[in-house]
Amino acid sequence: MLNYKRYKANPVLQFPERTWPEKQITKAPIWCSVDLRDGNQALVEPMSVDEKMELFDLLIKLGFKEIEIGFPAASQIEFDFLRQLVAENKIPDDVKVQVLSQCREELIDRTFEAIKGIKNVIFHIYNSTSTLQRDVVFNAEKEEIIEIAKKGTQMVKDRLDRFDGNLQLEYSPESFTGTEVEFALDICTAVQDTWNKATDAPIIFNLPATVEMNTPNVYADQIEWMSTHFKDRENIILSIHPHNDRGTGVAITELGLLAGADRVEGTLLGNGERTGNVDILTIAYNMFSQGVNPELHLEDIKEIVEVCERVTKMPTDARHPYAGELVFTAFSGSHQDAINKGVRAMKDRQNMYWEVPYLPIDPADIGRMYEPVVRINSQSGKGGVAFVMDTVYGYKLPKKMQREFADVVQYISEKQGGEVTPQRIMEAFKSQYLENKEPLTLEYVVIQDSKDTDDTVAVLDFSYNGEKFHSEAEGNGPIDAVKLAIKQCIPELEFTLIDYTEHTLAQSQGSGAKAAAYIEMRDERHGNTTFGVGVSSNITRASIRSLFSAYNRLIAKAKDYV
Amino acid sequence: MLNYKRYKANPVLQFPERTWPEKQITKAPIWCSVDLRDGNQALVEPMSVDEKMELFDLLIKLGFKEIEIGFPAASQIEFDFLRQLVAENKIPDDVKVQVLSQCREELIDRTFEAIKGIKNVIFHIYNSTSTLQRDVVFNAEKEEIIEIAKKGTQMVKDRLDRFDGNLQLEYSPESFTGTEVEFALDICTAVQDTWNKATDAPIIFNLPATVEMNTPNVYADQIEWMSTHFKDRENIILSIHPHNDRGTGVAITELGLLAGADRVEGTLLGNGERTGNVDILTIAYNMFSQGVNPELHLEDIKEIVEVCERVTKMPTDARHPYAGELVFTAFSGSHQDAINKGVRAMKDRQNMYWEVPYLPIDPADIGRMYEPVVRINSQSGKGGVAFVMDTVYGYKLPKKMQREFADVVQYISEKQGGEVTPQRIMEAFKSQYLENKEPLTLEYVVIQDSKDTDDTVAVLDFSYNGEKFHSEAEGNGPIDAVKLAIKQCIPELEFTLIDYTEHTLAQSQGSGAKAAAYIEMRDERHGNTTFGVGVSSNITRASIRSLFSAYNRLIAKAKDYV
Repeated sequence: MLNYKRYKANPVLQFPERTWPEKQITKAPIWCSVDLRDGNQALVEPMSVDEKMELFDLLIKLGFKEIEIGFPAASQIEFDFLRQLVAENKIPDDVKVQVLSQCREELIDRTFEAIKGIKNVIFHIYNSTSTLQRDVVFNAEKEEIIEIAKKGTQMVKDRLDRFDGNLQLEYSPESFTGTEVEFALDICTAVQDTWNKATDAPIIFNLPATVEMNTPNVYADQIEWMSTHFKDRENIILSIHPHNDRGTGVAITELGLLAGADRVEGTLLGNGERTGNVDILTIAYNMFSQGVNPELHLEDIKEIVEVCERVTKMPTDARHPYAGELVFTAFSGSHQDAINKGVRAMKDRQNMYWEVPYLPIDPADIGRMYEPVVRINSQSGKGGVAFVMDTVYGYKLPKKMQREFADVVQYISEKQGGEVTPQRIMEAFKSQYLENKEPLTLEYVVIQDSKDTDDTVAVLDFSYNGEKFHSEAEGNGPIDAVKLAIKQCIPELEFTLIDYTEHTLAQSQGSGAKAAAYIEMRDERHGNTTFGVGVSSNITRASIRSLFSAYNRLIAKAKDYV
Repeated sequence: MLNYKRYKANPVLQFPERTWPEKQITKAPIWCSVDLRDGNQALVEPMSVDEKMELFDLLIKLGFKEIEIGFPAASQIEFDFLRQLVAENKIPDDVKVQVLSQCREELIDRTFEAIKGIKNVIFHIYNSTSTLQRDVVFNAEKEEIIEIAKKGTQMVKDRLDRFDGNLQLEYSPESFTGTEVEFALDICTAVQDTWNKATDAPIIFNLPATVEMNTPNVYADQIEWMSTHFKDRENIILSIHPHNDRGTGVAITELGLLAGADRVEGTLLGNGERTGNVDILTIAYNMFSQGVNPELHLEDIKEIVEVCERVTKMPTDARHPYAGELVFTAFSGSHQDAINKGVRAMKDRQNMYWEVPYLPIDPADIGRMYEPVVRINSQSGKGGVAFVMDTVYGYKLPKKMQREFADVVQYISEKQGGEVTPQRIMEAFKSQYLENKEPLTLEYVVIQDSKDTDDTVAVLDFSYNGEKFHSEAEGNGPIDAVKLAIKQCIPELEFTLIDYTEHTLAQSQGSGAKAAAYIEMRDERHGNTTFGVGVSSNITRASIRSLFSAYNRLIAKAKDYV
């Protein structure tokens, strides 16, 4: 049995004054990417300078205005990378570069060397403040821990004249989630007083969930408590920096925003120490799905995933929100059916809003295709097959035909096992309908008006079981005339027309639109009914082809024809 | 730019009476696994019957008492699987098998056929209730939707005499998150009244987050509203069934439990439609980490991952909480240092509680090893290297030596790029210390008491640059005597002993414990200091070997020896 008695419940803040459960997210926070720092330091194989450069370029393209690039005083690679950004003039004027340092003199000196020539810098200092780290790592009293933070702040302040650009101070009480809020407030206030608005930019207090330690409401309480207890709150930027140890990193970020946070530090796709930093993409797309502008250019998630996977060498989970391979996919028949109906209703009503069951957003809005929305296996049904035929190939199967064709696909699925691709579905559609030309094959047809009546004349060359026929007949329309012409030669081939529809093929290739014709025929003698399908740029020819297709299916169904 | 104007904010419940933010999770809910239903239906390649059987056996072993096995009326495979469970007597008496059916007569009839002979069944019926599905999928008024649920309930009730076992009714207003709570309550109450306690077991109302539609607090409000508005609440089991579209499935489950839910439907590792069902393992381990008994046998996560990956063919993300390869891994030097200190403090103080920075739980408690806790790359520091040497190989390097050896490993890491494995670290430790035998090689040594004094005599055979020496000297202890014996033959080899420590090698292989000796020596002439290390089952020999190791390192450091 699990040895749960080795663990204690983490303390919970008593904060009945909380207001965050009443709030809603109505605007984007300030985003800060820590991909190049927290993300990079958690990789089995840290990024090369070239890879960092590629990721930096992507972050700029996505619209990040604050980017933490590393710990230049502790790592020569990160120092060199920062200098290369300066040398190559890579940092746009409206982007702040953030550098991290512990509160130690030699590290702060070295960091000031690293940032020379940069226009806008966030100078991020931290020390660990949790009860546990004070005890087992530093063996220090609260006063000593506060002293570290004050000294660090003073050291940055004392060196401001060495720096020509704009400098904004960020202070993190690291391991904040394990710190008493009163102490976190005390240490932030000591930093605030020491800094004393030494530069114009508001001070950033970053309250990390270095380790998630409780249910998400507890972090929200901690954040709102801090937000409402800071002095001079309007001159503070309250930043959060969530990790994901309990699998609730996205949740604590959202609740943290409700609780008053102004800024979020995170990474693309949630790369970062252990279970990762919070995934900024998920937070941003969540906002997007609620009609809130996330203020990032996230139209092409495929590009983001491609670059991230390449530079981090970390694959993206198939179920990762918005980004994963399967997250817009429905295999279940009832889900597929609802999606199919939802998409049709939206089109029919010309609804400007995206409202489709099981799909919170339109995959196309973030650069993903419809093709993977519905994937077909033995769990799927007619709605799914119809959706694939419609969205991938443009065939709008009549409702009754959806069941007929789904049975064909179901049979394939059970026989081959696993997934049936759209290509395989199309192959089946061709062999069963479009290219079903045996034993009855159309060779040549002329449709002309009757000279005597309002009727139509069909002049037909066709073969049946290899034998060639020439026939001519008059009917009340092309289909009727062709039916009669066949029957004149082969009397047993007499079937009843039940229904007929036709539509333009939206996705037809090449020049000129094509029409798809669907005909439902009944073989009264054997009691069979089936559809036939024909395609042509000529509407009449499409319908005649659909007739031949249906004839061949009915002949195959009844064993006594040959 | 993202076309966020295509989306609307989902409606939010006004519910200031909420109490869930004050609550804490203090006991495990009823767990229901839907791996074989929701999980299976979301796989590219659904499970074979053999694979289902293996997963079923695992679920039983883990202690699940409620297991949804599928939709037997809609799938022949699921029907057959259920009958096989019965035929092979696979279902323990204390386990309830759950079967899903839509509210349609032929499906309910067929489901009753499928459950024949089972002792305890949860008969789970559902229909979709959201505003969107009522509109675009069913095109039906509220009354019609309620009628479907009532009829389904009545149909199950009417067939109770066909079934010999215990039957518990579960009803799900599917797409609950998109349903007005008042309507969800109305439809549940209609089911409750129709059922009218037709069997002894309390009715289960399952309120799914079929699609996550809002921040996690909104679902919590919906659940608490329902929980406090149900009539005859004490005879209802309130179940939740969260999905993960917004990446907050774990959070809404935890807040749902705070809000009054009694039961959770989910899957192992979060398999399930699109972004997945909620991962029961994460919820359970989160409880465990807070000292709450999750009432599941989750001691061996490696086995769970192995079986799940095999039968679902879905890999586990490296950052998946508790289960992922990297989630107990620290690459960062400061994290490694804190972990190292935390583990030592816990041992030194004989603390019965697990309290280590950056590691919410002891990986060993869930069947994972220490080896991956600290992994070494160019971002790592002395704490990490010391931790690996200690936990993997049992060497407790003196504090000053940690820096020295970390520099060696850092050099390797920068040269080879990427991660440095424990094996590679041990190789370096051997070549630098344990097997550093050139140019000064110990051949044979006898340590004996002096006949005349309290001193110790060393009789030594050794070679230096290939030349053999025999020497004998007296000192105040073995190390001193050996030093003098060497100096007698090679006068320039005179170094100062700074410090010496020794410990038993806890992890030494084979018979009998071994000792590791660490000696710090200084070369005054060249100003170099280094450590040497020796290992032997004989304490004295270990110390002499450490002396030779240190000599060879000092000789190598100073270029003018040969």
